[in-house]
Amino acid sequence: MVGAGITLAPTITQASLFGDPRPSYATYMGGFSAPKLDKVRFAFIGVGARGSGHAKQIAAIEGTEVVAICDLYEDLAKRSADACREQGKGERHKKIKMYTGGEDDWKKMLKEQKPDAVIIATPWRLHAPMAIGAMNAGAHAFVEVPLALTIEEMWQLVDTSEKTRKHCMMMENVNYGREELLYLNMCRQGVIGELLHGEAAYIHELRGQMNEVERGTGSWRTYHYARRNGNLYPTHGLGPVAQYMNIARGEDNFKFINSFSSPAKGRQLYAEKNFPANHQWNQLDFKGGDINTSIIKTTMGRTVMVQWDETSPRPYSRHNLIQGTKGTLAGFPTRVALEGGVEGATENHHEWAEGEKLAQVYEKYEHPLYKRLGQLAVKMGGHGGMDFMMLYRIVECLRNGEPLDQNLYEGCLWSAVGPLSEASVAANGAPQEFPDFTRGAWKDTEALAIVQ
Amino acid sequence: MVGAGITLAPTITQASLFGDPRPSYATYMGGFSAPKLDKVRFAFIGVGARGSGHAKQIAAIEGTEVVAICDLYEDLAKRSADACREQGKGERHKKIKMYTGGEDDWKKMLKEQKPDAVIIATPWRLHAPMAIGAMNAGAHAFVEVPLALTIEEMWQLVDTSEKTRKHCMMMENVNYGREELLYLNMCRQGVIGELLHGEAAYIHELRGQMNEVERGTGSWRTYHYARRNGNLYPTHGLGPVAQYMNIARGEDNFKFINSFSSPAKGRQLYAEKNFPANHQWNQLDFKGGDINTSIIKTTMGRTVMVQWDETSPRPYSRHNLIQGTKGTLAGFPTRVALEGGVEGATENHHEWAEGEKLAQVYEKYEHPLYKRLGQLAVKMGGHGGMDFMMLYRIVECLRNGEPLDQNLYEGCLWSAVGPLSEASVAANGAPQEFPDFTRGAWKDTEALAIVQ
Ligand SMILES: NC(=O)c1ccc[n+]([C@@H]2O[C@H](COP(=O)([O-])OP(=O)(O)OC[C@H]3O[C@@H](n4cnc5c(N)ncnc54)[C@H](O)[C@@H]3O)[C@@H](O)[C@H]2O)c1
Ligand SMILES: NC(=O)c1ccc[n+]([C@@H]2O[C@H](COP(=O)([O-])OP(=O)(O)OC[C@H]3O[C@@H](n4cnc5c(N)ncnc54)[C@H](O)[C@@H]3O)[C@@H](O)[C@H]2O)c1
Repeated sequence: MVGAGITLAPTITQASLFGDPRPSYATYMGGFSAPKLDKVRFAFIGVGARGSGHAKQIAAIEGTEVVAICDLYEDLAKRSADACREQGKGERHKKIKMYTGGEDDWKKMLKEQKPDAVIIATPWRLHAPMAIGAMNAGAHAFVEVPLALTIEEMWQLVDTSEKTRKHCMMMENVNYGREELLYLNMCRQGVIGELLHGEAAYIHELRGQMNEVERGTGSWRTYHYARRNGNLYPTHGLGPVAQYMNIARGEDNFKFINSFSSPAKGRQLYAEKNFPANHQWNQLDFKGGDINTSIIKTTMGRTVMVQWDETSPRPYSRHNLIQGTKGTLAGFPTRVALEGGVEGATENHHEWAEGEKLAQVYEKYEHPLYKRLGQLAVKMGGHGGMDFMMLYRIVECLRNGEPLDQNLYEGCLWSAVGPLSEASVAANGAPQEFPDFTRGAWKDTEALAIVQ
Repeated sequence: MVGAGITLAPTITQASLFGDPRPSYATYMGGFSAPKLDKVRFAFIGVGARGSGHAKQIAAIEGTEVVAICDLYEDLAKRSADACREQGKGERHKKIKMYTGGEDDWKKMLKEQKPDAVIIATPWRLHAPMAIGAMNAGAHAFVEVPLALTIEEMWQLVDTSEKTRKHCMMMENVNYGREELLYLNMCRQGVIGELLHGEAAYIHELRGQMNEVERGTGSWRTYHYARRNGNLYPTHGLGPVAQYMNIARGEDNFKFINSFSSPAKGRQLYAEKNFPANHQWNQLDFKGGDINTSIIKTTMGRTVMVQWDETSPRPYSRHNLIQGTKGTLAGFPTRVALEGGVEGATENHHEWAEGEKLAQVYEKYEHPLYKRLGQLAVKMGGHGGMDFMMLYRIVECLRNGEPLDQNLYEGCLWSAVGPLSEASVAANGAPQEFPDFTRGAWKDTEALAIVQ
């Protein structure tokens, strides 16, 4: 059974909370730049709903070669290989090797192909082992969200990356959203003063995934909803807010999280309504509360409210918000309120500037990266262009030998909300302490540069 | 100094948490009806920004007589007495006695006038002592929000009301908002299925109150922001959500609260910018975080997110939300999403029905009370009519000898978020248990009737 490998977050021990001291042979990876690569040879593990999009977009970006694709299903691997070749217009990606059928074929692929970079878009429980395998095989690992499931796995990723000096980046695409980049830029320029509070929600009714019983997202994700109770998918909202606040980058850090889940009702009801009584979904005892609300407290005392709901009948929302002493920037819909008013739109902070009234805000504060790549990105697609922009930046940084926009420790920290929220929910909302995956080095880590 | 009497919430002891057993001479006041009053003789304590509105509206309602008004300031008492007489058109409210100048004049007023009901709209620290005094003098007490400041005071109110058999109602006007009544009606009719989660915010930038240095709201409220850290003003959002969920009324109850405050910045900055260095506001060390976010967990495992911010430069919002297994009802702006769609508006729950698209929802689910009183209420004013509707219902219930729409225990429970959130913030977000002011009787208390 696909979901059989899922276990609950184990209790966090002091050792895993603080990590052992960094060994002498290990390198701190915040701000790390790998040697330049003229051409980046990519391999893919998992080309289902998500990975197929990555493969096609990577193939379209200059300076890449897709060398291998691995998936359990041959038809999926073939579909992606075809798409890549089409992007290559008969010039690039001519020798894509396919590895399909076996659970462990990816290991063979890594060994035989020795790719420079591996993009991993598989079920959650496979993220960490595959990323560790990729780094040990000499490749940079790019991993879908969340980066890993347990704090132990995160420490293993840290240890492996620091030992192999290979990048391990969680691919948080929402950090490349136009609005999120705009807000990052505005925060950096002090437009809303000192930052005090953030909000980050991922509300996306996805019960329909349960119709994928044999293969596809629902076939494995349903087991997570049934067996785990917390915020299992926190990073879309949290990544951008964390970078606004310079979390784990010289200024502030996540310290505690308290987490609360509502009763678990929706998935059980959905199963009862849509599947026969003897169906596997009707044998599950769904534990995961329909909506989870968590609060993170930072070292500086700031608060971040993080919400997750993939079950309730509600419209999609990636509600996000960053509030400072001089104004508030909010998402879904995009709204700006500034003390003294928004140029060309409002007189004071008692009114939001929205829609067309934001024209002057965009003109003044559009992120340089979006100015450079936005048009192309929208054309290339993928969540309104953010996916393309992320993949483009990955290739660009690897080719230029520059640090990535999201480092190893950020991926771990944002993903840690998963297991820590589970632990807090299980303990009636008691605070859980974030591990410091940087072992203190975050204090000297630079803020994310406003990349041009 | 006006603010001198404020103290922090003391640590809650087991005794005050559960209360002593109800004494044999005491009456459980949930669902209590007092003997009918043909005419209700009202007295007022505090006719500042808020109380002056109450006095004028009460004077306009049939079956009332305003007999006395007490305030520290003669000009305020006189202004309200004039307004009442004007409402009485020379027929009613002809003999209003004024009590002004002394801190304790209200006691004299109660003794001399023996009113049937007293409306208390004074600074927070005076709510409980004045309500207790009123009940002991034989009057029903109607008290502004929050009902009291500490858990001890709340128990004293409970004990006094149960002993004197006098009503003690906190006047939560937002429960009479058109949208809140509509949602109450929809929840009762099962439109959104089983309730899972609620949200209730009061976001209202009121730094300008600090300009009231000598008298008026800012002259006393500023000390609360400076000396206390928590959600000091939780009831506007929470009252309606609690009644949707039948909290302390037969179905569910508040169990734990965890609370988190952001850094305290805004009021200090405002003082520095707008007052000389030696001004009293610049001598204060502001402790109260600019935005507080709390989570309540109920006995049934539901969650309620409660937020409060009267400091940050943001547009006003009374964001509220109630989410169930079949749909979500939200406020600011009013939005409805239902599984299967909203009649005449949407096809499914992936889209909100808002604005004019809600016509059929209002037609079908408008609360009977709003149907009966809405037009008159809007004409009479006060937060879009909700104030009038509340006062009208108070008079109506007293005259008919019917239970009030909000009972003593609800006022205490909703207000308890104040001191409990302070205790949680001081304890780094650790959960605080709600006292059961009903001493177990909530289990047999009836749901709020859909009053006609
Ligand atoms: N960032 C985003 O916006 C976004 C959107 C959707 C999904 N995701 C993430 O992408 C990942 C994949 O999700 P999905 O919806 O594409 O799921 P999916 O089930 O459609 O795809 C997973 C693929 O991995 C393959 N796979 C499973 N085990 C394998 C193995 N041992 N070796 C090789 N291949 C294997 C499966 O055959 C499948 O094709 C998840 O981590 C998910 O959270 C992210
Ligand atoms: N429900 C609502 O929508 C709403 C709105 C505003 C205020 N309020 C509440 O109303 C209450 C009053 O607030 P406000 O803004 O009117 O403040 P305010 O300062 O304008 O009014 C308080 C009045 O009480 C008087 N007072 C003080 N001590 C007194 C004493 N010992 N004896 C007699 N009178 C005394 C003051 O002179 C003043 O006129 C507060 O509890 C506040 O939270 C509620």
